[in-house]
Amino acid sequence: MAEIPDSHPRKASLLSRQRIVEATKNGLLADSAMIAHGRGEAFDYLLGEKTSDSAKLAIKEVAARLMAAKNPVISVNGNTVVLAGKSLIRLAAVINCPIEVNIYYRTEDRMLKLNSLLENQKELLSQESGPKGWDGIWNSAVMSVKILGKLGDGRIEGLEGPRAICSAEGIEKADVVLVPLEDGDRCEALVNLEKQVLVVDLNPLSRTAKMATVTIVDEISRAAELLLEYAINNNQMPTEWNNNDILNKSLKIIASNATI
Amino acid sequence: MAEIPDSHPRKASLLSRQRIVEATKNGLLADSAMIAHGRGEAFDYLLGEKTSDSAKLAIKEVAARLMAAKNPVISVNGNTVVLAGKSLIRLAAVINCPIEVNIYYRTEDRMLKLNSLLENQKELLSQESGPKGWDGIWNSAVMSVKILGKLGDGRIEGLEGPRAICSAEGIEKADVVLVPLEDGDRCEALVNLEKQVLVVDLNPLSRTAKMATVTIVDEISRAAELLLEYAINNNQMPTEWNNNDILNKSLKIIASNATI
Repeated sequence: MAEIPDSHPRKASLLSRQRIVEATKNGLLADSAMIAHGRGEAFDYLLGEKTSDSAKLAIKEVAARLMAAKNPVISVNGNTVVLAGKSLIRLAAVINCPIEVNIYYRTEDRMLKLNSLLENQKELLSQESGPKGWDGIWNSAVMSVKILGKLGDGRIEGLEGPRAICSAEGIEKADVVLVPLEDGDRCEALVNLEKQVLVVDLNPLSRTAKMATVTIVDEISRAAELLLEYAINNNQMPTEWNNNDILNKSLKIIASNATI
Repeated sequence: MAEIPDSHPRKASLLSRQRIVEATKNGLLADSAMIAHGRGEAFDYLLGEKTSDSAKLAIKEVAARLMAAKNPVISVNGNTVVLAGKSLIRLAAVINCPIEVNIYYRTEDRMLKLNSLLENQKELLSQESGPKGWDGIWNSAVMSVKILGKLGDGRIEGLEGPRAICSAEGIEKADVVLVPLEDGDRCEALVNLEKQVLVVDLNPLSRTAKMATVTIVDEISRAAELLLEYAINNNQMPTEWNNNDILNKSLKIIASNATI
């Protein structure tokens, strides 16, 4: 990888891009993962490449809903694992919930690779000290995070073919699902099953963003770090949530940045 | 490739995406070409995936400037060849100018592959009948389009390393350069050499878009087809051109589409 100087104003964005390029070479991602990443880059650029105040509200709400859930699960695809895998394992340890690998173009090879990567990251993270402000035995909290998905013994009703496959213990059983970077069809199917669907999507106009229960319009690695922080310092209950209102706030940022 | 039904509202966009994915697999494109394509997709989505009236004005101006040039050249990178190679060969035949393969991450292998692809397309196009409204011997017009770039015997002053390499007979000699999908540094260097730099860029906020003499804010395959049409039915001379004004019009479209 090329060195990016610390002073580069877009260092975080360029590092994420390198991670996606490398992971594609290593067979962790589907063909079009880089294109999806590029779309995200453009929206993030228009959002100023920072977490907006309205996104922070959504992140707080998502943290509160995950903490209050009976059976929460964090569903991750390839891009999410590559960009925010470690932060989401930490989050799962704090919430005490499983992570499910659930990918759009399901192949045995990529499922295995993503699963191994997460298991390796778990090992590494279990040897760190716990995040600031968190009380408990970090090592066992991390090691008890189940990585689901390989088995594929559950189904998402309303979808057909490989895209309906999920984990019985994960998405199928869950009342609250955090699904960063989800596609519109699956988001709709999960909403129809009366689950709370919490998404992270940089495009506030996407079908996923509009369908979800709560939409975090932010870049996944930034959002995941804040989710962890808010989950640890959680002091709010889920609220009556107006998702349209939060999407409009993101759109206003895009519109206001669309000037020379 | 998966079949996309004719009825799909975003068929053109999905076909372009497939072309980029296939070309990447075939080694025609750099690692990050798919990411660049994804960024373009997002901006095109915000522009409504159609050529705006202001983009049409820019395309007319570019056609007029290419026709009026002393030594025009069309500089193409990998994504441009894949998405609009044929249209640009037709355009070069009508204008009677060379095409130069000029890529950001120059490797011998990709230069050869892109060169061969264009030479093959030339062969195929020379056997078609000429475009509507064009008078002349189509076969010889197409076959006389020189594909430059392999030699790399010219230099773009103001740049260093492989990115300064160009063709002496192409970019180095040209007074007017059409460079779709150019990067900011090279656009700036070409402007500093007092060449007219005509670009196609879906991001009206990019450095390239702001630096260029004329910026077409449109998707390259749509723009290339219209360029051909306007070059054939050319009935205007280059005007006094206010590029900032045209960029602002694109930004207004983005801002107005950023609403639910």
